[in-house]
Amino acid sequence: MTPSSWVLLASLVLGGSCSGVRPAASASSERNCSATPPILPPTAVNTSHRLWELRQAMAPFNISAYIIPGTDAHLSEYIAERDNRLAWISGFTGSAGTAVVTKTRAVLWTDSRYWVQAERQMDCNWELVRDSSISSITDWLISDVPDGKEIGFDPFLFSFDTFKSYDANLAPAKRVLKSLQQNLVDEVWTERPPVPKENIFKLPDNFIERTWQMKVEHIRQEIRNNAYKPTAVLLSALDETAWLFNLRGNDIPYNPFFYSYTLLTLDEIWLFVHMDRVPEELKAYLNVGCYLADCVQLLEYDTVRVRLGDYVVRSGVRVWIGTEYTTRALSELITPEEKVLTSAFSPVLITKAVKDATEQRILKDAHIRDAVAVMQLLAQLENTVPKGTENELSAANTVNGFRQAQKHSAGPSFETISASGPNAALAHYSPTNETYRNLTVGEMYLLDSGGQYLDGTTDITRTVHWGTPTELQKEAYTRVLMGCIEISRTIFPPRTRGVYMEMLGRRALWEVGLNYGHGTGHGVGNYFGVHEWPVGFQSNNIPFEQGMFTSIEPGYYKENEFGIRIEDVAVVVPAATKHTVGYLTFETVSLVPYDRKLIDISIMSPEQLNWLDAYYQKIRTIMGPELERQGLTDVHAWMMKNTEPLRTPTAGAPATLPSLGLTLVVLAQALLQHLC
Amino acid sequence: MTPSSWVLLASLVLGGSCSGVRPAASASSERNCSATPPILPPTAVNTSHRLWELRQAMAPFNISAYIIPGTDAHLSEYIAERDNRLAWISGFTGSAGTAVVTKTRAVLWTDSRYWVQAERQMDCNWELVRDSSISSITDWLISDVPDGKEIGFDPFLFSFDTFKSYDANLAPAKRVLKSLQQNLVDEVWTERPPVPKENIFKLPDNFIERTWQMKVEHIRQEIRNNAYKPTAVLLSALDETAWLFNLRGNDIPYNPFFYSYTLLTLDEIWLFVHMDRVPEELKAYLNVGCYLADCVQLLEYDTVRVRLGDYVVRSGVRVWIGTEYTTRALSELITPEEKVLTSAFSPVLITKAVKDATEQRILKDAHIRDAVAVMQLLAQLENTVPKGTENELSAANTVNGFRQAQKHSAGPSFETISASGPNAALAHYSPTNETYRNLTVGEMYLLDSGGQYLDGTTDITRTVHWGTPTELQKEAYTRVLMGCIEISRTIFPPRTRGVYMEMLGRRALWEVGLNYGHGTGHGVGNYFGVHEWPVGFQSNNIPFEQGMFTSIEPGYYKENEFGIRIEDVAVVVPAATKHTVGYLTFETVSLVPYDRKLIDISIMSPEQLNWLDAYYQKIRTIMGPELERQGLTDVHAWMMKNTEPLRTPTAGAPATLPSLGLTLVVLAQALLQHLC
Repeated sequence: MTPSSWVLLASLVLGGSCSGVRPAASASSERNCSATPPILPPTAVNTSHRLWELRQAMAPFNISAYIIPGTDAHLSEYIAERDNRLAWISGFTGSAGTAVVTKTRAVLWTDSRYWVQAERQMDCNWELVRDSSISSITDWLISDVPDGKEIGFDPFLFSFDTFKSYDANLAPAKRVLKSLQQNLVDEVWTERPPVPKENIFKLPDNFIERTWQMKVEHIRQEIRNNAYKPTAVLLSALDETAWLFNLRGNDIPYNPFFYSYTLLTLDEIWLFVHMDRVPEELKAYLNVGCYLADCVQLLEYDTVRVRLGDYVVRSGVRVWIGTEYTTRALSELITPEEKVLTSAFSPVLITKAVKDATEQRILKDAHIRDAVAVMQLLAQLENTVPKGTENELSAANTVNGFRQAQKHSAGPSFETISASGPNAALAHYSPTNETYRNLTVGEMYLLDSGGQYLDGTTDITRTVHWGTPTELQKEAYTRVLMGCIEISRTIFPPRTRGVYMEMLGRRALWEVGLNYGHGTGHGVGNYFGVHEWPVGFQSNNIPFEQGMFTSIEPGYYKENEFGIRIEDVAVVVPAATKHTVGYLTFETVSLVPYDRKLIDISIMSPEQLNWLDAYYQKIRTIMGPELERQGLTDVHAWMMKNTEPLRTPTAGAPATLPSLGLTLVVLAQALLQHLC
Repeated sequence: MTPSSWVLLASLVLGGSCSGVRPAASASSERNCSATPPILPPTAVNTSHRLWELRQAMAPFNISAYIIPGTDAHLSEYIAERDNRLAWISGFTGSAGTAVVTKTRAVLWTDSRYWVQAERQMDCNWELVRDSSISSITDWLISDVPDGKEIGFDPFLFSFDTFKSYDANLAPAKRVLKSLQQNLVDEVWTERPPVPKENIFKLPDNFIERTWQMKVEHIRQEIRNNAYKPTAVLLSALDETAWLFNLRGNDIPYNPFFYSYTLLTLDEIWLFVHMDRVPEELKAYLNVGCYLADCVQLLEYDTVRVRLGDYVVRSGVRVWIGTEYTTRALSELITPEEKVLTSAFSPVLITKAVKDATEQRILKDAHIRDAVAVMQLLAQLENTVPKGTENELSAANTVNGFRQAQKHSAGPSFETISASGPNAALAHYSPTNETYRNLTVGEMYLLDSGGQYLDGTTDITRTVHWGTPTELQKEAYTRVLMGCIEISRTIFPPRTRGVYMEMLGRRALWEVGLNYGHGTGHGVGNYFGVHEWPVGFQSNNIPFEQGMFTSIEPGYYKENEFGIRIEDVAVVVPAATKHTVGYLTFETVSLVPYDRKLIDISIMSPEQLNWLDAYYQKIRTIMGPELERQGLTDVHAWMMKNTEPLRTPTAGAPATLPSLGLTLVVLAQALLQHLC
């Protein structure tokens, strides 16, 4: 799990009743715009000049407002610095937000995770609206922008779906959205970072089962099989093109992507990239230069609108787009209506969601090496924390270093969440020089981290306590673990949606009136973004099929006190069922033991304990040899100690007993001792 | 549960992979249109003349096709005979289907439940499409109707949403939907039954907590509170008007409804009914004759379009409609767009979903009397079935008779499903003179039935076996019961959606590769339709709140062999949780024990057994005195025998043992006996 899109998750899952974890406000660190003169913290950014310039740029277009979303032209979750227009204009660097600038006002919308941060980073030019819904933004626009006036936006920063939502709210009120081809922030952002120069590169051959030609043929088959007879697929999300050609780049932090689009037709392949970043050997690899169906035609990235327009005017064509990742800038070109075919996700994202045998194998491999790094850290902290020599930053750096030492490492897959005590109650917290806490035996510690490896992307969360946990901490941790296990061990028919199963992750918490305000899992893949859509447990995720990988990550957060999350990655595998074949279950591929000090086995079911002991046995079987191979004797000892079976030998023995109460075992033993 | 809308349920829940239970086809009983001459069973209806007449009626409108849905002008689930245009024109009497008639073809779409029935009832004028999706119908229309041609439909038989779906598919292909004010089937259906003459009547005062004036004020408050500032609510569903005025009628079999619409504005109340059916005392009750905000203006039912048009042209008005129950005929009048406000369900349906204290009390009361009737039948069958004197029809008649004898009875709430052996594998089967089976000790028997009472509507399913069940029957029954219990006992935060919990009803079946192809529950209310929307476990149901009533009804169906379903009605009540207040759970209000012969306690969890024994104790506490009061000594004895605790006394005792394995108890006891 990582910060972005959590509130979306929460609102989808909980019907909007997010529990709203937020840090305690510190008066001195936040702005006070009602004071005279206004009080600004040192972290606030002076945006007066920037706003003045933006308003100058707005003037010629005769627009009453300009909308600035926090995404890029590929609707990426993580964006490059050069695309962070929202941060530049407002000072606010949170991962989710939307700004609107009018002639006299500047307003930021963001969700509860970021309210304090916004108050620390924005100056008094900016108003903050504590809401992130589109309807809140459009309500504001309707009240502030006069009837009949135009509202400017960059169509490259609005998805097909997002534009529709804005327009559906604004059109009845006669406020008109005006699509501006030039981004107005870019016009005034003189020091905007350039496009990276680094070359695009191809994945190692041994990590590839399907060549790009095979993938192209597969997607063309999907095109041919579609009842609505499309003639092309347009790929806008960065992982779509990267997947199709088995290519990667380094344009976006933590994400091995490169700026690109693809238009794949039944007889042509148009790849839009910054062409100076494609070395000769890649051109050969892509069959550049010929014009057959299997030859890639390299086209300059910025020509995508013109070229797409050229294609669309051809007679008889119909372009298939995924509405969640195609921008308004491209979809608005595909007219008349019968030339576009929409589905939520393109056939590439749907195909990519199911990993082939090689992808499954190497992704599991990556998780083994990743588990080494995490265990190295946990073993080390057991020694260093009591000495008082560790803090959130040192721990984050250490685990990143351990990962870096592993084979095929390509850096962290997101900014490490290393959070102690109350900091962990902020589900998305990453330590900074200003905020970090020392790690102590008196606080719980939450580590949510992951690595990029050439063979796979990892994401794992463990929560630990080096001292004596409170009753509530132990109960909450155990119930979070029970949720994790209940999802992991559940058996379900093929194509069951995750959203219909995710309450299993919450049920043990619900039983005692506890809950968490975020989603329960997201797809993970092979050297891609750490949140790989559209797999997961949300309502807009696709049904589970064999070969999909997802995280499973329930949690519990006690405001100002502590935070608990357990996150494993699991793959969907066939389940052995008595009456039918084809049913599915999960196999956990993360291989790091949980903190046994925090587990209260008395509230767990026999089935949960069985699962746990089997998982620990699997860790020993797989990680034992790997740790030995890497010569990590101390870590091996730590692993063995922490994977001792939790059930007593007596209880574990008779496998034919379906419903075995541990407490009763103890009772029976006591009785036997007493009586005999 | 009752037949209608099951396939919708199935496709929503299972992503379309409905298990498709269908009866074995009998060659002689079905039509064979490829034979020369065609072979028609005696059940087929000759539609040649009707179709000829309909085509004559179509001619003046210059339409290429005419669509005939199977609903009425209120989008009712159950319809009056006079509204069954689909049955009249096609011969097909199933509860779900759509017909299209062109100049040369006549086609029926229906789902798998009805394929055999359609082949038995239709003559060779009709083609059958084995699909019920709108896209299947529109695909056919696009292929059969030439480009640019018009397709006629009656806008009173299309909901706002249904029309949109048709139009979204047809418009891009340039097929135009033409709204015809006169229903063409009605024009040629000379013997169409008239509107009933029976008077509308009001509920007894002691069953009413909120007078109609209080309800009107409440809904007006909802109108005032709505951010989009509507000025009126239009009520189209028959239970909306019936609820608002505490009135009922008898226009539709099994449903105490009367033809009606209401337009409720902030200062007027327009009630559209057949005015000759409103007796003088009702006029007084409704304050008819004055023109204040609290006076009802009675308007003739057929003037609804004209009057709504009059209202809409007023300046500054905005009409709030629920899109699932408002017809295209009415919504198309509300123009321009800013004069309409849409939500899936009207504020009346949302308000009505939560029962007030009186409604809760009397609905529980109705379930007590209903349980008497069901227990009377089950007790009787235990004696009569082994004698060979019972069949599906006699059992259905008997239970209906027992219900009729109970206080406030107003007939069955749907056609009783009384199904033995393979007939029960057809989830929607009701016995007829042609199909009924004798009840024997060799077959399982499923009874799904319900009653209308002036104080409440009931719906309960029990499955029993009077001989020796097979292993599979016992396992499947137990797992269905486990599903029922898991939902019933689950604790959840307020406003959790049923669709996110309903897998608990399936999980025990999934574990061994079994499942069922229908939904898991629907709302139930006070003397209304047995399926009371929008409460339940489907994706378009609203979140659960305290005071809502729903059925819980998992099942399992083994084609050609047997069918199992367990259905209880439960009310959402506060749950006692350790850490928070406000969490919810279910309290079961159906009070009939399950068949203990079919329960395998060895696969149930201690929590499930605890729930079951507590439920049985509750049945004894509530039903014991009632059965005694009614002097039903034999039934009382039957009830006591069937509510014996299922757990051994030893196992039930120590309440502090959280996870108690029954098998282990037995083991421990055996050990103790052996050793000591």
